[in-house]
Amino acid sequence: MDSPTPPAATRHIRLTSHPGQGTDSAPALRWGAADPHERGPVVGSTGNRSQRNVIGTHSGSYGVYRALAVAAGNLTKGHRADLTNTAPTDAVGPYPVWGDAHKMVSIDPWGASVQTVYADYLERGYDIRPTIAVTKAHIHLPEIKQALAFQRLQVDGKILLEDASATVTKIAVEPVWWLPGVAERFKVSEADLRRALFEETGGMYPELVTRSDLEVFLPPIGGQTLYVFGDVRDLANPNVTLTARVHDECNGSDVFGSDICTCRPYLTHAIEECIRGAQAGGVGLIAYSRKEGRALGEVTKFLVYNARKRQVGGDRADKYFLRTECVAGVQDMRFQELMPDVLHWLGITKIHRLVSMSNDKFDAITGSGIEVGERVKIPDELIPADAKVEIEAKVAAGYFTDGRVPTADDLAQVKGRGLE
Amino acid sequence: MDSPTPPAATRHIRLTSHPGQGTDSAPALRWGAADPHERGPVVGSTGNRSQRNVIGTHSGSYGVYRALAVAAGNLTKGHRADLTNTAPTDAVGPYPVWGDAHKMVSIDPWGASVQTVYADYLERGYDIRPTIAVTKAHIHLPEIKQALAFQRLQVDGKILLEDASATVTKIAVEPVWWLPGVAERFKVSEADLRRALFEETGGMYPELVTRSDLEVFLPPIGGQTLYVFGDVRDLANPNVTLTARVHDECNGSDVFGSDICTCRPYLTHAIEECIRGAQAGGVGLIAYSRKEGRALGEVTKFLVYNARKRQVGGDRADKYFLRTECVAGVQDMRFQELMPDVLHWLGITKIHRLVSMSNDKFDAITGSGIEVGERVKIPDELIPADAKVEIEAKVAAGYFTDGRVPTADDLAQVKGRGLE
Repeated sequence: MDSPTPPAATRHIRLTSHPGQGTDSAPALRWGAADPHERGPVVGSTGNRSQRNVIGTHSGSYGVYRALAVAAGNLTKGHRADLTNTAPTDAVGPYPVWGDAHKMVSIDPWGASVQTVYADYLERGYDIRPTIAVTKAHIHLPEIKQALAFQRLQVDGKILLEDASATVTKIAVEPVWWLPGVAERFKVSEADLRRALFEETGGMYPELVTRSDLEVFLPPIGGQTLYVFGDVRDLANPNVTLTARVHDECNGSDVFGSDICTCRPYLTHAIEECIRGAQAGGVGLIAYSRKEGRALGEVTKFLVYNARKRQVGGDRADKYFLRTECVAGVQDMRFQELMPDVLHWLGITKIHRLVSMSNDKFDAITGSGIEVGERVKIPDELIPADAKVEIEAKVAAGYFTDGRVPTADDLAQVKGRGLE
Repeated sequence: MDSPTPPAATRHIRLTSHPGQGTDSAPALRWGAADPHERGPVVGSTGNRSQRNVIGTHSGSYGVYRALAVAAGNLTKGHRADLTNTAPTDAVGPYPVWGDAHKMVSIDPWGASVQTVYADYLERGYDIRPTIAVTKAHIHLPEIKQALAFQRLQVDGKILLEDASATVTKIAVEPVWWLPGVAERFKVSEADLRRALFEETGGMYPELVTRSDLEVFLPPIGGQTLYVFGDVRDLANPNVTLTARVHDECNGSDVFGSDICTCRPYLTHAIEECIRGAQAGGVGLIAYSRKEGRALGEVTKFLVYNARKRQVGGDRADKYFLRTECVAGVQDMRFQELMPDVLHWLGITKIHRLVSMSNDKFDAITGSGIEVGERVKIPDELIPADAKVEIEAKVAAGYFTDGRVPTADDLAQVKGRGLE
């Protein structure tokens, strides 16, 4: 079939691969400056090109939908957000670490407070968007209702309400990558990072390789959501007991309850621990990252499931990592290297109870200078039968356990269900 | 702080904005050809540039993580996926509609079967990746367990098992956009679509505007997941009763049970209806799309929550849409226009019971030629108190109801909770 219309340009299109006219008005960014004015506002909106000082645009991958909205005529090109009444419900920071260009490389610490911090820029017509939003919510989870029924939790009227809902502050965070710092985190040169980001995405954003003057990249990927139980300010107080889980998205389990992994059971257990901790005068945190299927995406994840369950000998813990590596080329692409940034943004210096067995997460958190007290395992009774393959393979590979580390022989005995 | 390393190129970087050498070996794509060989394979992997015949790369937004993996030295550049044992557990199609370039514009109908359909290309060294994966799962939802306890559902040993898990076929689908067809769907010229996708993303993929010869785009956005209850083949049989819900992601409710909307309650109700339908000899389908916060992203969503709850008069149904529009410029960016493609891919011609009240979804589905029988409301008792604002506003704006449509006066009376 032919194209309905030939893609002929009727208006001048300017490529972005090299600096052009009018960039005089783009605010300079001095990443790592403690003062937000010295640092400068991140301008990633597309309405006025001359104001932009980053590569990419806002809303992560949803920037593509915004582009569709403009194409379809639903959204006016250059729409300015009316930010009335949108300010954070809870203040976070500022903390000294916000000015540390080694610890804050993948989010904009001033992203929640652009309205106040950069009010003068906004008044002068700069289109500065929040990259962080802070609100309040009541959350109802069937697993928490069950914990109440079994009297593992009690209603206190503040953290956990009569209707079994928990009160939380929730915070959405979009990625804002300062490329020199991201490169440093991965121990590669900035040039190599930029080149890989360009080449391995099939050529996304040529400015990555042509505009070394633009150091900040808003990547089209999912961000993070933080759920805080108790007072957000207490997160920064090492004397208040912090219970925290850093959780990576797994739609199949988190939403649909697939029994091949422990994701939702571990998450809801962590929420229960967070509520219990907050009720005891502490504070709780779930940091949820959009990294589906170890950031391999769900198509790859399902391909791996099939390869695991069909291999000779069936789905076995001793072949668990190998199958992912055959299909994807790596065991995992989640890169916990950037994850601690959001913890530092919250002012966290100590996690008293880390509800995670992942050594990658533990190493990244402690490596970034945050102290970790106890590590909390998922209770055995919450591990679905078919998920034993995963959890045993991970424990053998270095996941935290207070029990016995399985041997190679043990792993060969741990088998999952076939494809029926 | 200075860059750790200057972004100096030590190896030649080729921009992609204009056709270069070696594209002779890229297979031609003739979208809409019924025969997969005549259509040609979609080659979006980055290992061998001369084979590529699309803009963008695989895995949606996770392509960025793959690029990070190469930069970090974890993934070998040019890794070829070993697809052994990854083939679909269930055959889907082919159906005649797969060759309809008006109905199949946002997914590759041959995306699940590249290993068999393009075996010759793979043998000749082409790196062709599946964009669809089909597997089996058992899913456990607390709400289904409750439906069993209340005897609304019964165990049958096939669809619903003794341990309260349901058996499903699940299918992950990545977006593959044929730009002329996407433009036609939105009733804009291909040139305008390409320009908006380029300009409004801040310059993502210059090929969008420079390479009109490349008609297929793999956008860096989330895809869809399909959960099928019963026999996948029955979806294409209009004589088998199909219960279906088309659900758009809402992490805050789907995972965490936030009470400001009806997302998870409606989803789990639909799963219950799907199981009941499959047990009665029918088939069930949940099509889950990654379109967080009406595809505005979660930061915008939370900003809107604050604006709603803080406005004069509090959170009221009559101001529900207005607040979104003030912040985002539109009420919704989900664009149901592309959603029916996946239903056609499954061979669906009739949905007997559509578990959705959305008029946008209904219009898109019926407008694409799929017949819809009954429309199933969310039961009133499943609507959280704070979500009444949303549901009443939507019913007044055209959502399906078998009850009374609220008037402007009614809407002004429907109030939500404040920010406490």
